[in-house]
Amino acid sequence: MPESPIRKLSPFAEAAKRAGKKVYHLNIGQPDIETPEGMLNAVKNIDFKVWAYTESEGTHPYRNKLATYYNKHGYNISADDIIVTTGGSEAISITFMTCLDAGDEVIVPEPFYANYNGFANQSDIVVVPIMSHISNGFALPPISDFEKVITGKTRAVFICSPNNPTGYLYSKEEMEALKALVLKHDLFLFADEAYREFCYDGQTFVSPMHLDGLEENVVIIDTLSKRYSACGARLGCIITRNKEVWHNALKFAQARLSAGMVEQLAGEAAVDTPNEYFEKVHAEYSHRRDLVVSALNKMTDVYCPNPGGAFYVMARLPIDNSDKFCRWMLEDFSYQNQTVMMAPATGFYTTPSAGLNEVRIAYVINENELRQAMICLEEGLRAYPGRV
Amino acid sequence: MPESPIRKLSPFAEAAKRAGKKVYHLNIGQPDIETPEGMLNAVKNIDFKVWAYTESEGTHPYRNKLATYYNKHGYNISADDIIVTTGGSEAISITFMTCLDAGDEVIVPEPFYANYNGFANQSDIVVVPIMSHISNGFALPPISDFEKVITGKTRAVFICSPNNPTGYLYSKEEMEALKALVLKHDLFLFADEAYREFCYDGQTFVSPMHLDGLEENVVIIDTLSKRYSACGARLGCIITRNKEVWHNALKFAQARLSAGMVEQLAGEAAVDTPNEYFEKVHAEYSHRRDLVVSALNKMTDVYCPNPGGAFYVMARLPIDNSDKFCRWMLEDFSYQNQTVMMAPATGFYTTPSAGLNEVRIAYVINENELRQAMICLEEGLRAYPGRV
Repeated sequence: MPESPIRKLSPFAEAAKRAGKKVYHLNIGQPDIETPEGMLNAVKNIDFKVWAYTESEGTHPYRNKLATYYNKHGYNISADDIIVTTGGSEAISITFMTCLDAGDEVIVPEPFYANYNGFANQSDIVVVPIMSHISNGFALPPISDFEKVITGKTRAVFICSPNNPTGYLYSKEEMEALKALVLKHDLFLFADEAYREFCYDGQTFVSPMHLDGLEENVVIIDTLSKRYSACGARLGCIITRNKEVWHNALKFAQARLSAGMVEQLAGEAAVDTPNEYFEKVHAEYSHRRDLVVSALNKMTDVYCPNPGGAFYVMARLPIDNSDKFCRWMLEDFSYQNQTVMMAPATGFYTTPSAGLNEVRIAYVINENELRQAMICLEEGLRAYPGRV
Repeated sequence: MPESPIRKLSPFAEAAKRAGKKVYHLNIGQPDIETPEGMLNAVKNIDFKVWAYTESEGTHPYRNKLATYYNKHGYNISADDIIVTTGGSEAISITFMTCLDAGDEVIVPEPFYANYNGFANQSDIVVVPIMSHISNGFALPPISDFEKVITGKTRAVFICSPNNPTGYLYSKEEMEALKALVLKHDLFLFADEAYREFCYDGQTFVSPMHLDGLEENVVIIDTLSKRYSACGARLGCIITRNKEVWHNALKFAQARLSAGMVEQLAGEAAVDTPNEYFEKVHAEYSHRRDLVVSALNKMTDVYCPNPGGAFYVMARLPIDNSDKFCRWMLEDFSYQNQTVMMAPATGFYTTPSAGLNEVRIAYVINENELRQAMICLEEGLRAYPGRV
């Protein structure tokens, strides 16, 4: 099991803090946004006496509520198409175990969320990366690139839109191209939609659930973590209209008994979160994105595409090695006793030496801190001995 | 992935209820005992604004609290020996993935908790059963039986004491015999201690953590589910003084990010549960056990050993097939419009046709209902066409 690349820098961040430096955490997807009051009140207002197991597939009331949420988004599903999971993490691992055997292959456009590797590893599944590029903002690679790597072992294509780590939002045309691909080769299409609610500039989110004819192919992976800034609730789900997949996934869900009971009560309340909450959060993230993208592109020899969603950007920096640079920022650099922690992009690629001059920046801190962090980064780039 | 054997009967129980029968649920380990007020109050009194990830190994305050709990039980550990997990289920799966590779073997006295099979399956680990017998109350099988099945692929022995499904409590002598075995063959010793607090008749619980010289071998698997009747909290942990195991387990914990935040706050409160709570629960379970064991042994041709712990008994019944019998009780039988749901013991054995005349009974309902359930069972045994 490889170490989580996002965690590798943690000891250096701890040391920097012990040395009295202020560290701006742009390295992880833990937003500062407040969790909706309705969810927290649901926790505070529990009135049971026995904290019991729930049904392995999730409680009926919660799955019913979820179905209304998804149908508002045009998914046309019922509660019986949902299995509630312990976070998006478990949704991914159950999906892998259900749909792929040891040695089977899943194609994933890279860069991709590093923990996909961890879950694939656990089930001896092979992740086959397809390169996407910063030069076109990490758009879907040409379908011909997918075709080239399809083998008799290929079982699925795995996408994430809006994307972590790139923020890229797949267009309707790109989704249609993927549909044709998976139908042609009879593959599953796994879609991680953790960032569904975060699309900017009036762009429309397109889910494979919006496309006809994919009923047997699609497995949606979802989580409350980002949508409601409730990462610590560890509540997600799998959605599929493929009944065989659903029933097989249930067996894995039964082995671990159930997801959390209190969280599912909070999840019911979450579906009733007023629109104003999302409007406010949306405006905040959109504003932060503009700030970060603009600040980065003003720095000498830095390039940052303007992504359509999520709360991440990938930036190309004039550096020799992003692992070294991010560590140097924590260990050896400070500006007015502050520094910035970022995620080296190398951790999001499996192709060797890809991402060496890229970092992922999560805009999960407030505007004033973001401004300070951008100044720090610019000063850091000026001072870095490995600048190229 | 095989279906969870405990769930196979659920559709028949549902049908029985729809037909208006009262079903006594003696089939699952979901107690009716109330969760300690302190835990529930910790949930009601949350005062954070962002429901955030915690450290992957668990929060410092919670692990510190846990260490005080275990040290009160003589474990001599620190917070750094603990990794907090999403229930005992995840503790088992992470332990398997950390200590065994695909094809490796773990020896488990059978009958054993059926989901061990599920988790082994997920990692292509081979469970090698060693038969224990109802005739001696499911005591530890002779060490020579373990020796016979040890191969170059054997990596671990996995025990559960007090045992699910048998209730058997391993003695100091049995634990010492296991110690000698694992040291001789350089094996891990995994111990599922979910029922640690439930030992009756003044018998003493012995953990492998109480034995010197096993520091590198032992991994303890624990959960709050049974101890505090908090199954739906999904909070457990791994304890090991083997630093390599701890660090490798942490990588799996990091891949899934963290256990629940609210649960860990409740877990801190749980450690402060007053002794009176346990005394009351202990007296209740002990009383129920006496009632069930006595009622069963009074039935014609029924035998039930008197187990030292947990809240299960295994009973030998005069029946042809426990799967058929348990299903028949739900589908075709009622006494005063009531019936009983039990777990066929076949699900706890991997050896074919073992457990055909045994059932597991969980005494997780109140005394009056238990009495009614025992009457129903006796009447059912009289009427069952497959009686032998």
